[in-house]
Amino acid sequence: MAVGLSPPREVAPVRGVRLGAAAAAIKKPGCEDLALLVLDEGSRAAAVFTRNAFCAAPVTLARRHLAAGDAPRALLINSGNANAGTGGDGIEDARATCEAVAVALGCPVEAVLPFSTGVIGQALPVERMRAAVPAAIADLGEGGWLRAARAIMTTDTVPKIVSRRITFGGRPVAVTGMAKGSGMIRPDMATMLAFIATDAVIPQAVLTDLLRDAVDVSFNCITVDGDTSTNDACVLIATGAAGGEPATLGHPDFEALRSAVEAVCTELAQASVRDGEGATRFITIEVDGAVSANEARSVAYTIAHSPLVKTAAFAGDPNWGRILAAVGRAGIAELDIGGVDIHLDDVCIVRAGAPDGDYREADGAAVMTRPEYTIRVALGRGDAGARVWTCDFSYDYVRINAEYRS
Amino acid sequence: MAVGLSPPREVAPVRGVRLGAAAAAIKKPGCEDLALLVLDEGSRAAAVFTRNAFCAAPVTLARRHLAAGDAPRALLINSGNANAGTGGDGIEDARATCEAVAVALGCPVEAVLPFSTGVIGQALPVERMRAAVPAAIADLGEGGWLRAARAIMTTDTVPKIVSRRITFGGRPVAVTGMAKGSGMIRPDMATMLAFIATDAVIPQAVLTDLLRDAVDVSFNCITVDGDTSTNDACVLIATGAAGGEPATLGHPDFEALRSAVEAVCTELAQASVRDGEGATRFITIEVDGAVSANEARSVAYTIAHSPLVKTAAFAGDPNWGRILAAVGRAGIAELDIGGVDIHLDDVCIVRAGAPDGDYREADGAAVMTRPEYTIRVALGRGDAGARVWTCDFSYDYVRINAEYRS
Repeated sequence: MAVGLSPPREVAPVRGVRLGAAAAAIKKPGCEDLALLVLDEGSRAAAVFTRNAFCAAPVTLARRHLAAGDAPRALLINSGNANAGTGGDGIEDARATCEAVAVALGCPVEAVLPFSTGVIGQALPVERMRAAVPAAIADLGEGGWLRAARAIMTTDTVPKIVSRRITFGGRPVAVTGMAKGSGMIRPDMATMLAFIATDAVIPQAVLTDLLRDAVDVSFNCITVDGDTSTNDACVLIATGAAGGEPATLGHPDFEALRSAVEAVCTELAQASVRDGEGATRFITIEVDGAVSANEARSVAYTIAHSPLVKTAAFAGDPNWGRILAAVGRAGIAELDIGGVDIHLDDVCIVRAGAPDGDYREADGAAVMTRPEYTIRVALGRGDAGARVWTCDFSYDYVRINAEYRS
Repeated sequence: MAVGLSPPREVAPVRGVRLGAAAAAIKKPGCEDLALLVLDEGSRAAAVFTRNAFCAAPVTLARRHLAAGDAPRALLINSGNANAGTGGDGIEDARATCEAVAVALGCPVEAVLPFSTGVIGQALPVERMRAAVPAAIADLGEGGWLRAARAIMTTDTVPKIVSRRITFGGRPVAVTGMAKGSGMIRPDMATMLAFIATDAVIPQAVLTDLLRDAVDVSFNCITVDGDTSTNDACVLIATGAAGGEPATLGHPDFEALRSAVEAVCTELAQASVRDGEGATRFITIEVDGAVSANEARSVAYTIAHSPLVKTAAFAGDPNWGRILAAVGRAGIAELDIGGVDIHLDDVCIVRAGAPDGDYREADGAAVMTRPEYTIRVALGRGDAGARVWTCDFSYDYVRINAEYRS
């Protein structure tokens, strides 16, 4: 059902990052559900996590390990079990899995970061995971991206990997990321699990800013159903294996690097929406003419989260009154509807708050039966804007989420 | 699919209110889609309307007519067309239909209040509606509640009428209301169309307060999909035909009257959720231990609007991690999850922020396969609470809303 999404074509390995996958029988026996990323010494990492107050045990522990100051050497990721809502035992369990990796690699336990995704509220099968660590280590290689990306999938229908190659200070540099969606995606934070790595040399402070800026314009602009996960995390790794000049803000190639990281994040974020549970349309919502970016975001998310808009999108029905009703209830103070224009792609449906005189239903229907289109709302009261990517709401969304555990 | 809902049993006529229905070919030819309520002279009315900035033409006009100060003599309600998003023409159209009623009854046009529900953005079929007015007038009678309640239905599966009989100052008094749901239901305001009438004698100021208080604990506590309609309205009518003492706050029977009005509003509001589009479960969400009622409402509505919670409810799957995740993302400042308890009916699932040691999946499943149950969240940080009624999210919700116009 994914909209305009195909399996990854070109995957550029990142020197200094080796990936392995293994079957730990977390989901079903025989299915690879454990991924391990091992980073060369000298690597740096920055991370952002969910803002959900009920954050999962691996989120709590990964934050603690990062705060301990040891440079991360490994990331252990499992699908099939979120280790969330598991209290203090969950933290102990996550730590035990990190320990298995740390012992095998000969590094401090704090240098291992845990990530989990799957069902909430069930105990992590620690022993099966520990038992699978040697197989994951034996499997490590710089070409392991695709199998790792598969191992972290839950309801995703395709593995998600995006690569960019650039030249930095005369040397070839790769930026490659993988992510798993595809429900529980929401702007509040990093949304889902995403791991992006580059072999560029990037100072820690620059790396942290680079990640935050890239997340702001990518993962924080998507929504499938408005639910923010307990486990969302996004990590940016710089191994420095490319050598050469460090990527500082003033470097003439810095923009190329920044834009490669942003492009990888944006494409991964959009891929998660394209692969949104049951998605049949990929919809861009652009709001401008707002007094503030927050105001523009409120309007964009109210449209993006409206079940009535989303089911009309599924039907390909230009029932634009539902868009208008969503704008009207977005909570914008003293909204003068006389200043509001609404377009579907290039078709004007509402001008100055009233149906456009030239609008014909056939024109609206022509846009809404496209697999991808843009809903554009001009509020006419300021200069701020926002853009959000979302998908429709189909029978399959209900099926997938009603059957997820059975 | 309605949950625990049967056609109205006993309908108490309200002296001074006559109702008629007619077919105006707004939906399909031959189907009654126009209802007319005519009030005896001396009747009073209070009304609350949607807060959607894109409110429909009939909402704008009904507000204007009420503000003009003439006592309302008639309410004209149509289904099949919302007359929303129709600009200035929509107001003219609504006025033209009121005029047809006013001329026929010999009253000022301002004494007629218009209400519409149905598809947004299409011109009202004014001529067909005007042509049907004489038939509606010929049909008027105090026993017309059921046919009127049917005529205002859209995706409702049963007509909704609730009655209470009380004694006020020694005289028999009736309180009867009808409503149509069942999508676009949301706390922001009056939610859907509801018309409640009593033959008690109620001064205008008391009537206004009575309505606001009753709406606060009934229609403003329900949600199906978080979408607030452009057309929501709720009207309370007092004809005074019962005669006798006026219902003032100090009257010994005032509590009985207040409680009858509240009971009618609450039962109608709950009926709209029970008949929510595609609903298979009726869920009460109770939040207590909050710092403020607003905080409690935020948590309750975040749970009630979560598509993941709603699809798990449809499946009857005690995937309580989704409830916990919704509490965690409700935006409560400095929420100490260590103070949070969550129950499904009498089954404790989370105690002090962690899974309850005694919880067994079979117990949770036993609750969540019930057609009606309560999700209870104790935040453990204050004395305020809130209660919200909602329903699940099923295949049929998608079907109904994807096919609504086709």
